[in-house]
Amino acid sequence: VPKEVDHQARRRELADAACRVIGRHGLAGATLAQVAEESGWSIGSMRYYFPSKDELLAAALWRVGERIDERIRRRTAGGMSLADLRTAALELLPLDTRRREESRVLLAFLAQAAVVPELAAAADDAAQRLQEPFTARIAHAMQAGQLPAHLDPGHEAIRLQLLIFGLMVELATTTTDPRHLATWAQAILDEHLAALAAAPAPSPERATPARRP
Amino acid sequence: VPKEVDHQARRRELADAACRVIGRHGLAGATLAQVAEESGWSIGSMRYYFPSKDELLAAALWRVGERIDERIRRRTAGGMSLADLRTAALELLPLDTRRREESRVLLAFLAQAAVVPELAAAADDAAQRLQEPFTARIAHAMQAGQLPAHLDPGHEAIRLQLLIFGLMVELATTTTDPRHLATWAQAILDEHLAALAAAPAPSPERATPARRP
Repeated sequence: VPKEVDHQARRRELADAACRVIGRHGLAGATLAQVAEESGWSIGSMRYYFPSKDELLAAALWRVGERIDERIRRRTAGGMSLADLRTAALELLPLDTRRREESRVLLAFLAQAAVVPELAAAADDAAQRLQEPFTARIAHAMQAGQLPAHLDPGHEAIRLQLLIFGLMVELATTTTDPRHLATWAQAILDEHLAALAAAPAPSPERATPARRP
Repeated sequence: VPKEVDHQARRRELADAACRVIGRHGLAGATLAQVAEESGWSIGSMRYYFPSKDELLAAALWRVGERIDERIRRRTAGGMSLADLRTAALELLPLDTRRREESRVLLAFLAQAAVVPELAAAADDAAQRLQEPFTARIAHAMQAGQLPAHLDPGHEAIRLQLLIFGLMVELATTTTDPRHLATWAQAILDEHLAALAAAPAPSPERATPARRP
């Protein structure tokens, strides 16, 4: 269905333009007119695809998720080892220009989702989607004996994501030279993964980890 | 100096009004006029104290930090135990209406600091300030034998803060009932603190933790 393909390609093109504008100016400084100019499409087609700024922001978030998924697939080649888990986690950190733009879009989205209830469902979906490559690889590393068999993959995927979100915020909002922070951020991540690999089995009296409701 | 005191009190009052408005509408939806109306002061005094939206946002962040500091001091009564560390950490999580407003202001600020270099220094200051109650209590708990003596207090304060930032983002942007999330968030925090208390001494060949540059 060529028409459907065109629509999808156009949405992606506009969402990429939105990512660039939000990445430069933030949400408060971004306008539909700027995104139209950035994309080379008319403001009319902008409004057709994204009637409001929140819809544009949701599309930018969707595109960021797609870009991260694509890179994880390419860089891990579907690999499921602990090293691939590390690679997947690093794809979410603002360690180069492209990922810095994505972090800015993600932060803009999260700040807006905190006050616009209609965006919170998209935030839940995004969190879920970002966890999936983690959960699958943690489960696989447990089966392969790289991680202890007593871990709960979903719980550990959320814990890893909490760390990645914390690092994303820290790296995206500091005055420190990002080149110095890359080494530090990777060391923090490695420390987390090493603790995971060495995690002692829970004592019998200790309850299973609390599930995210 | 009564005049100076007045100024400080007025700044605080306006910053509290800014917190309420940003907490309701986010930064993109907040205007100086709304904050003036919310505070009961004229838009002229608003502009005198905060010539731009970014300065208003920085003042709101300062006020959030002050409110968190006040609560930590009150709830721990200066106590330095591991339980007080836990109490201090929980003061940063959006587990009630007041803290939810603070998380929204903090998220709005962080999203803006990611694109406005002039705000990044304030973000570094805020991160530093939020870590201080953690660092002091981790060092004290180490001396009291509640935490292993081989830990690096500054490093562990940052790691705790990364987790708290991750939890803050997760709790502030989800559709899940916050009452269900409080138990879960506390369990995640307790798991982190338990792992800290049980952390094995690093093996001799392992380097000291990477310092945040």
